Amino acid sequence: MVLLMVLLMVHIMVGSPEKMIENMADNEFSIIEQYFSSIGWQSSNAVVLGPGDDCAILSVPLGYELCVSTDTFLSGIHFPDDCSGTIVAQRAFAASLSDLAAMGASTHSFTCALTMPSVDHEWLRDFSSRLSELSVEFKMPLVGGNMTRGPLSLTCTVIGIAPAGQCIRRGGAQAGDNVYVSGSPGDAGAGLALLIDSRPGFDLLRSAYESPRPRIEMGERLIGLASAAIDISDGLLADLGHLLEASQLSAELALDKLPLSKSILRYASHQDAIALALTAGDDYELCFTAPDTYKHELSEHAKDLGLALTCIGIVVEGEGISMKGGGLSDLELSNLELDDRGYQHF
Amino acid sequence: MVLLMVLLMVHIMVGSPEKMIENMADNEFSIIEQYFSSIGWQSSNAVVLGPGDDCAILSVPLGYELCVSTDTFLSGIHFPDDCSGTIVAQRAFAASLSDLAAMGASTHSFTCALTMPSVDHEWLRDFSSRLSELSVEFKMPLVGGNMTRGPLSLTCTVIGIAPAGQCIRRGGAQAGDNVYVSGSPGDAGAGLALLIDSRPGFDLLRSAYESPRPRIEMGERLIGLASAAIDISDGLLADLGHLLEASQLSAELALDKLPLSKSILRYASHQDAIALALTAGDDYELCFTAPDTYKHELSEHAKDLGLALTCIGIVVEGEGISMKGGGLSDLELSNLELDDRGYQHF
Repeated sequence: MVLLMVLLMVHIMVGSPEKMIENMADNEFSIIEQYFSSIGWQSSNAVVLGPGDDCAILSVPLGYELCVSTDTFLSGIHFPDDCSGTIVAQRAFAASLSDLAAMGASTHSFTCALTMPSVDHEWLRDFSSRLSELSVEFKMPLVGGNMTRGPLSLTCTVIGIAPAGQCIRRGGAQAGDNVYVSGSPGDAGAGLALLIDSRPGFDLLRSAYESPRPRIEMGERLIGLASAAIDISDGLLADLGHLLEASQLSAELALDKLPLSKSILRYASHQDAIALALTAGDDYELCFTAPDTYKHELSEHAKDLGLALTCIGIVVEGEGISMKGGGLSDLELSNLELDDRGYQHF
Repeated sequence: MVLLMVLLMVHIMVGSPEKMIENMADNEFSIIEQYFSSIGWQSSNAVVLGPGDDCAILSVPLGYELCVSTDTFLSGIHFPDDCSGTIVAQRAFAASLSDLAAMGASTHSFTCALTMPSVDHEWLRDFSSRLSELSVEFKMPLVGGNMTRGPLSLTCTVIGIAPAGQCIRRGGAQAGDNVYVSGSPGDAGAGLALLIDSRPGFDLLRSAYESPRPRIEMGERLIGLASAAIDISDGLLADLGHLLEASQLSAELALDKLPLSKSILRYASHQDAIALALTAGDDYELCFTAPDTYKHELSEHAKDLGLALTCIGIVVEGEGISMKGGGLSDLELSNLELDDRGYQHF
């Protein structure tokens, strides 16, 4: 009877035997309308029908397969509690699209379910306007989602497309392939540490954490060249480990080839910079393997996109990852001994 | 430096200059492996590559469009805090697929992101085993997701397929169309009230809430017959209101035609039963409009599927919904006056 009482409490008294009931947009719908309508639509012809019906209707070009991935971003776990809507949008968008990039997929569309403790218009404005800019830039329309009252979190499901049979998987590495990494891993980890310490300066590191770039364009160019790929969300060693496990192979990494940025070397000691580059997550760079014959072609793509691609090792028979070099002594290396499980989700 | 300290704390000391680092499945991965691997796969040929890579790879049959919808289910809001994993699986699955049914779409695949305060193996076992049964029954493989520590909630993104250009939308109703509803709305609302009151008996009502059936088969048969459709998640009046708003039309409902179940009439007064049928959510029945010429065909489909389909009114020009009948006096009707905003998501 509790429910009936609640129902009766919201009834409005009108004395007519024929009841005229007007539709009233409820809060969820009005917030979605205000902040999340038509995000990224103008950039795409994939949307047959956008949000507002029971489902969005999407078209898929002939001869393409879908790549689909879902990620949750929880305040206090995946980003600091006081993160602005802008930064949350940037990080969630990059993290989500990064999974598409790792498959070589092109962007298609995404959904976003948002949970908030209360309606924070400033946060929503920042979040939605940055999400909108990124959606247009990456041709990735927002086609659905919902809003619920609860702890601040969002769950994004991204859909990408790739020519059928062409997606790059984790399990395709071959012994003898080179191991590549894009960008300068570790920068985002240093950026997060700066943020936590409220330490000023080091804008490039901070921006690596706050505004990572999903490597969609590079991913698209890796189709037909990379034998296996993964994005670095949990740390280079952890993610390369997943790739090698799927390929049932091992790798030898040359630590002195790690592309450490000038910024990270100003921020941390050489040893700490290597630790960050190997274990810190949040970079959303690509780690992939490719036969040596594609070396030149890859370097041309890197130049063309203005994105560093560095060969940091080689795939070999065996299990796990072995590392050497980096100019470190045995003692330093032993202090560097790493647990490569990366970020613990649970 | 905080991050570096954390990183260094998890390092394991090994004295070798070449570090062998074994991949260790972290908790998230082992939970997913234990409970969520291959759910529903055997039932589908849509999955080219399942979970375990950066994305799942899915194939879409030629000439079909995608229908996509995302829903969040939060403990204490969308289901009682002490709900078993079985019931949460049933309700979330039905609520999610119901959106596909409302478009006339067939099932394709889904992702599920789960947030839990701690690893509750009993709950996970119940949840995943029921989800698995339903996935097989409805040919709806689970192709991705993730697990995060946080308040109990899940966000499901469902993908359906329908012949291109054939999806049933909310906005297609025509004046003169009949208004239909499947099943006996209100039963789930009564079931929820029973659950909250810890009142025994009324198994059919309880089951309507705990184990709603997504009307996928009926939805598929409505393609080409229904002019507009929606599923009843927020209440018949609220959801029919959305359909009419999208169609820019009104409807006249005959309350004495409402298909009230025997159970709900034993549970509640006639007036309360009507209130529940009109305003309680959680039924996941279909409400749709169709030209009178399809009356016989619809009735054959209903008989074939063993699902009641009832014509409860007619679409007319105008706005809102008018109601009459139900054997209620003016005073009773005025007490019944309803706010049709349905469930308030925010």
